[in-house]
Amino acid sequence: MTPPDPAIQRVHIVGTGLIGTSLGLALRRIGIDVSLSDRDEAVLAEAIDLGAGRKRDTHDQAPDIVVAATPPGRVGEVLADAGRTWPDATLTHVASVQSQTQIDALNTGAPTDRLVGGHPMAGREVSGPQGGRADLFDDRVWVVCPAPGCEPLRTQQVRELARLCGARPVEMSVADHDAAVAVISHAPQVLASTLAGRLVEAPDDVVVLAGQGLRDMTRIAGSNPQLWEEILRWNAASVSAVLTTIVEDLHHLIDDLSGSGDSLQTRDLLSRGVAGQARIPGKHGGRDGDYEVVSVMVKDEPGQLASLFVAAGELGINLEDVRIEHVLGRPSGLIDLSVKPQVIDRLREGLTRQGFDVRS
Amino acid sequence: MTPPDPAIQRVHIVGTGLIGTSLGLALRRIGIDVSLSDRDEAVLAEAIDLGAGRKRDTHDQAPDIVVAATPPGRVGEVLADAGRTWPDATLTHVASVQSQTQIDALNTGAPTDRLVGGHPMAGREVSGPQGGRADLFDDRVWVVCPAPGCEPLRTQQVRELARLCGARPVEMSVADHDAAVAVISHAPQVLASTLAGRLVEAPDDVVVLAGQGLRDMTRIAGSNPQLWEEILRWNAASVSAVLTTIVEDLHHLIDDLSGSGDSLQTRDLLSRGVAGQARIPGKHGGRDGDYEVVSVMVKDEPGQLASLFVAAGELGINLEDVRIEHVLGRPSGLIDLSVKPQVIDRLREGLTRQGFDVRS
Repeated sequence: MTPPDPAIQRVHIVGTGLIGTSLGLALRRIGIDVSLSDRDEAVLAEAIDLGAGRKRDTHDQAPDIVVAATPPGRVGEVLADAGRTWPDATLTHVASVQSQTQIDALNTGAPTDRLVGGHPMAGREVSGPQGGRADLFDDRVWVVCPAPGCEPLRTQQVRELARLCGARPVEMSVADHDAAVAVISHAPQVLASTLAGRLVEAPDDVVVLAGQGLRDMTRIAGSNPQLWEEILRWNAASVSAVLTTIVEDLHHLIDDLSGSGDSLQTRDLLSRGVAGQARIPGKHGGRDGDYEVVSVMVKDEPGQLASLFVAAGELGINLEDVRIEHVLGRPSGLIDLSVKPQVIDRLREGLTRQGFDVRS
Repeated sequence: MTPPDPAIQRVHIVGTGLIGTSLGLALRRIGIDVSLSDRDEAVLAEAIDLGAGRKRDTHDQAPDIVVAATPPGRVGEVLADAGRTWPDATLTHVASVQSQTQIDALNTGAPTDRLVGGHPMAGREVSGPQGGRADLFDDRVWVVCPAPGCEPLRTQQVRELARLCGARPVEMSVADHDAAVAVISHAPQVLASTLAGRLVEAPDDVVVLAGQGLRDMTRIAGSNPQLWEEILRWNAASVSAVLTTIVEDLHHLIDDLSGSGDSLQTRDLLSRGVAGQARIPGKHGGRDGDYEVVSVMVKDEPGQLASLFVAAGELGINLEDVRIEHVLGRPSGLIDLSVKPQVIDRLREGLTRQGFDVRS
C-alpha cells in the first residue's frame, strides 16, 4: 500500500444529521467531492437537496476519507465496514466521545493504522440536516485523536479535513479528550439537569422567584435526554470521575455548613470558583475580564434596542458582548454592553449625550 | 400604643450599600422622607450625595419604618437597637435569609409584634452606593415574612413599603422563603462555584475547549466569596437540604454509569431536567417556550448589530430576547433573536429580503 497523499479530493460522509450535513456543506463550498449516505432515505434526500453532497455511484472512485457522522454507538460498525470496502481510505468520525468509540471501532474490525478519531467542538441546540451550516466549524477547535499505531499521514489528513472545514485542529490523546469534555461539557450538562430537576415539584411561588442566575444555570437542561444519555454512557468513566470530585466538594461544604466539618471549606470552594471562572476564555480568546460593561436601561418597545446599537455604531465602537437582563413583567430591560476598556468612557459619554439612560 | 397607620411618611434606612441606597432612591422619587445611617461615614456621604436621603437630625420625628439594609449578621442588633430607640416604628430588613435573621433579631431583643422580614428579589453584580438605582425593585417580587405574633398592620406597612418601591409584595413563612431561595439562588451559586473550581488546575488545552454552556453555568461563580459564605451559613439548613438531594441524584447517576445502579437513573435525571427547566418563567412571566428564535449570522464590526436591530425595528417587531453566540477567535457571531411566534415568519422574511444571513 502506498502512503496516501494528505491532499483531500473525495470525502464520504455516513450520517447526514446536523453535523454530517454541515460537514458536507463546508467541504462543498471549496469544491471537494462529497458523497453521502444515511440509513434514513428521507434524511439523506434532504441533505442532498441542501447541497451537502451527492449519493454514491457504483463507478465512483474510492474516497480519501470516510467520516462517520453518526451517534457514538454506530461509529465502530460504520468505520469497520468502510475499512473493508475501501482498503486505502482514512477513517474518522466526529463523535463527542473518543476512548469508547476507538475501542469499539477496533473491536469491530476497523484498522488501527488508518483510524483517527475527531471531535469538532461545534454544535447547535437544533438537530437534523435543516440545521446544517457550511460555517458551523469556522474557527472552532477540532480535536484529533489518532489510534495507537496510526500512520502519521492519516493524522495529517484528518487535520487537513478540519482545516478545510475552517476549524483549528488540536491533537490530543483519547483519554485527555474525554477527561476534558467531561469537565467542560458533560458534567455541566448533568449539573444543569440535576438543578433543573429540583423545580419539577417545586410550588409555583418558588418557581416565580427564579432569576437570571437560575435561568443561565439551567438553560442546557433543555437538551435531548436520549442523546445525552448516550454521550454520558459512552464517557462514563471520565464523567463519573469529575462528578465524584464535585460530590466530594459538596460533602465538604455540607459538613462545614452543619458545623461538623472544616470551617474553611465553604470559603475555599467559593474562592476556587472565582479563580476557575476567571480562566474561561471570553470572546476571541480573551478573558471575560478583558472587557468592561456599560449598563443602559431601555424601554421594551420596537426600535429601542436598535437606537442603542445605532448610537454605539455611530460612535465607531464595537460591542464585544451584549446581555439583556429582563425583569418579570417589566416593560423595560437593562442592557449590559461589553466593550474594550479603552473605549468605555467614550461610549458612556456618547450615549449619555444622546439621552440614553446610562446606569453604570 | 395606637396601631400605626399603614401609610408611610418617614423611613429610616440603616446601611447604605447597593440595596440601602437603591431603597432610598426609590422612596425619594415619590417624596417619602428618608433618613440614612451607615457605620462608614464615607459610604453614607456617598449615598446622601446620590440623593438617597439625608442624615438624621436630633429634632427629627420618629420614622414609621426602620429598614436594616445590612449583611444578615448585623440585622438583629440593628433592629433591636431601632426597636428601643423608636418604640412605635415597624422594623424590617432586606436580607436574603429570613429564619436566622428573625431568630437573631428576637434573641437580640427586637419586638416580635413589630418585626416583619423582607427580601426584595433584586440585586446586581456590583456593590456599594454607586451601583444604586431608583428602579432596582420595579416589578420585582418582594418577599414579606411577618414574625410570630406580629401585628397585621405592621405586615401591611411592609407590603406598602414594597409597593412604594415599585415591587410586588408576596407573603411567605420564613421557612418557605429560605427553602425557596436555597433552590433558586443558593444551591445554584454553590454548583456554579464547584463547577468553576474544576478549572483551577485544568490544563490550558482543556480550558480552551470551553463553550457557551460552561460560560453560562459558571457566570455567577465570579460573585463575592465573603458575601456568599455569610449567606450560605445563615441559610445552612435549607441549602444543605437541597444540596443533599442533588448529591443523591449524582450518586444515582454515577452508580448507573458504572453499571452498578438502576439503569433508568440517568435518563430520569435528564428528563426531569427538561421538565424542570420548562417551568422557569421567561420574560414577562411567559415560559421560554412562548418565544421562537430566528438566528442571524453577523460580522463582528461596529454597526453590524445595529443594522440588524434597525431592520427588526422597521418591521415593527419587538425583540423579546437576544443571545449572541461568540466563537473563539471568530470575527462574526450568530445572533439568536427571540420573538413572539406570530411574527417569526415576518421577521425571517423581512431580514432575508434585506440581505441578512438568516440561518434558521
